[in-house]
Amino acid sequence: METAEIKVQASTHAYSIVIGEGIRKQTKQYLTKDYSFVWIITDENVAPLYLSDVLEACSPLQVHHTVIPAGEQTKSTDYYYQLLTEAIEHNLDRSSLLIALGGGVIGDLAGFVAATYMRGIDYIQMPTTILAHDSSVGGKVAINHPLGKNLIGSFYAPQAVIYDVETLFTLNKKEIRSGYAELVKEALISDEAIFYSFLNTDFQALSKATVQEHIHIGIQIKAHVVETDEKEADMRKYLNLGHTLGHALEAQLGYGTLTHGEAVAIGLLFAIHVSESVYDNHLPFSELKQWLQNNNYPLELHSVDQQAILAKMKNDKKNKHQSIQMVLLEQIGKPIIKQITDEDMLYYLSSFERKLVGE
Amino acid sequence: METAEIKVQASTHAYSIVIGEGIRKQTKQYLTKDYSFVWIITDENVAPLYLSDVLEACSPLQVHHTVIPAGEQTKSTDYYYQLLTEAIEHNLDRSSLLIALGGGVIGDLAGFVAATYMRGIDYIQMPTTILAHDSSVGGKVAINHPLGKNLIGSFYAPQAVIYDVETLFTLNKKEIRSGYAELVKEALISDEAIFYSFLNTDFQALSKATVQEHIHIGIQIKAHVVETDEKEADMRKYLNLGHTLGHALEAQLGYGTLTHGEAVAIGLLFAIHVSESVYDNHLPFSELKQWLQNNNYPLELHSVDQQAILAKMKNDKKNKHQSIQMVLLEQIGKPIIKQITDEDMLYYLSSFERKLVGE
Repeated sequence: METAEIKVQASTHAYSIVIGEGIRKQTKQYLTKDYSFVWIITDENVAPLYLSDVLEACSPLQVHHTVIPAGEQTKSTDYYYQLLTEAIEHNLDRSSLLIALGGGVIGDLAGFVAATYMRGIDYIQMPTTILAHDSSVGGKVAINHPLGKNLIGSFYAPQAVIYDVETLFTLNKKEIRSGYAELVKEALISDEAIFYSFLNTDFQALSKATVQEHIHIGIQIKAHVVETDEKEADMRKYLNLGHTLGHALEAQLGYGTLTHGEAVAIGLLFAIHVSESVYDNHLPFSELKQWLQNNNYPLELHSVDQQAILAKMKNDKKNKHQSIQMVLLEQIGKPIIKQITDEDMLYYLSSFERKLVGE
Repeated sequence: METAEIKVQASTHAYSIVIGEGIRKQTKQYLTKDYSFVWIITDENVAPLYLSDVLEACSPLQVHHTVIPAGEQTKSTDYYYQLLTEAIEHNLDRSSLLIALGGGVIGDLAGFVAATYMRGIDYIQMPTTILAHDSSVGGKVAINHPLGKNLIGSFYAPQAVIYDVETLFTLNKKEIRSGYAELVKEALISDEAIFYSFLNTDFQALSKATVQEHIHIGIQIKAHVVETDEKEADMRKYLNLGHTLGHALEAQLGYGTLTHGEAVAIGLLFAIHVSESVYDNHLPFSELKQWLQNNNYPLELHSVDQQAILAKMKNDKKNKHQSIQMVLLEQIGKPIIKQITDEDMLYYLSSFERKLVGE
């Protein structure tokens, strides 16, 4: 497939999302300014595979790179501070560019470093996972606090997103599952036909063309939403479909037990379950559950304590006045925000757990 | 004098700066939204004087307050993290308001907490020092890194600035000196008549009307600059007149030895000295020096090591490609950015030190 380009208009500037095969090797042609210095932040999984290509593609610019451990635990104040210190020690100035080469963790962490180092330097997202199609668009950057996910962060748009689909073919199945959960979410809030076309996907037989097409669709949906509502006043909240339970599960089980997308997948089923209870409508609960099972998503609540889950849900940034705001579906493509009382939420959690195990 | 209002158009929203006597007691009337929660952050010097007035003025809203030690050492990652933790523990949500009640340190620290807690909540600056007229306008918020001042931060405009001039009359002389240095700087980059009118000020005989007028003028200058160039691409850099040496001195001597403004005052003299050397023009070096002496500004370099000062100057955020960018004056009201080589800088530091002691 040809390289595709999607333009996003952020409040501060416009930027391009480029999706194509092997484009990591053309990194330099996507730099729009004369940068004094390029700093690549990546992780131990990605570095051996793609770092040398990107380093080469930045030549002859002055480049420094930092490789950190892979995993959500680096989205911490400790790593954040270490990276800032490294930036200072390497004399990075305001005309430096930061490249976040990796998945959503690298994008969020490096993006927040870029957002706050010297009150903001330019950065580029180079996502290497399917999941990161979601986080790399829209300028949300953040680190975690022990008391909750993404509680420290900003809105800070990248200068470009360079999405090389070749890098997605070194992902393991767990990561593919994680990424597709967000694609399915985007379909659910936007269009029934897209949703069912995504449900045709069998992870055992995934082609580059299919992945590129799905990512393109997912990013278009996401880009449209964030252009309309960059600062999450309203419409952007719909992107949190599945995240009320998803985030709470991740936090409760400890980051890393489930991948983000695996937690969101369970959260999507839960959102459908609650929607059906609230609106008495018919949504594709069993179709989605079946597809998730076919693709080996872990669909269980791990006997988590429901009061603890409720407490985590109330820590969510989307809440107002301490009551839980949940994204539900009136129908596919018609998301809506609904306030759920603690009592109702506990009831839905119980009935969902029973439904999940097929009672 | 009547309460004055200056409107500032930031890239994200417009906000008002209100300057008047006793207006801390009318805080609630300046809140433009229905906030779920108000969180006041202040320090141990300010709290006994003005906190109860502001608390009372916020009634019947739900209010929480935090009092931290006074001084630059709280602009640290430790205090930043502590405050974020406190925000989470008090269940602050996105429709909470943070009020920064205090000087520039409180404004910068609390402002950066507001900028990054849940990717940004609303905040209001309530400056209680003359110096803070500068930092409270323009949305620059930051904390320090052990390797340099304000290296971690963002651009994040407040919802309002409520400036009660009554609070300025509990300042000690050191703080008045500190604040007036920035006022003089604003005069130097904008207008000769204003500059000389400021030089008529005798701190022994300062009236509320005079202070209110001077702050009003200073804020107008500052507001005009930041409206024109919010993100410091160009014109905003002029506000750094006096700060190349000022920041380096502060960092080298350890924050707190000199107040910020006292360091800037020396920096202003230095900028004039360098300007005269570079442009062979005549600037009011001796007039300013005389006025600073009359008002007991400490005018000495404390035998600091010049190589160390140079190294600190090179850590400045305004630099490009590791060479020092310094704001100079072609004449009063005509600032200009000039790149200074290391060698020249060392020469200017030596000649300045001699000139300062009157050799």
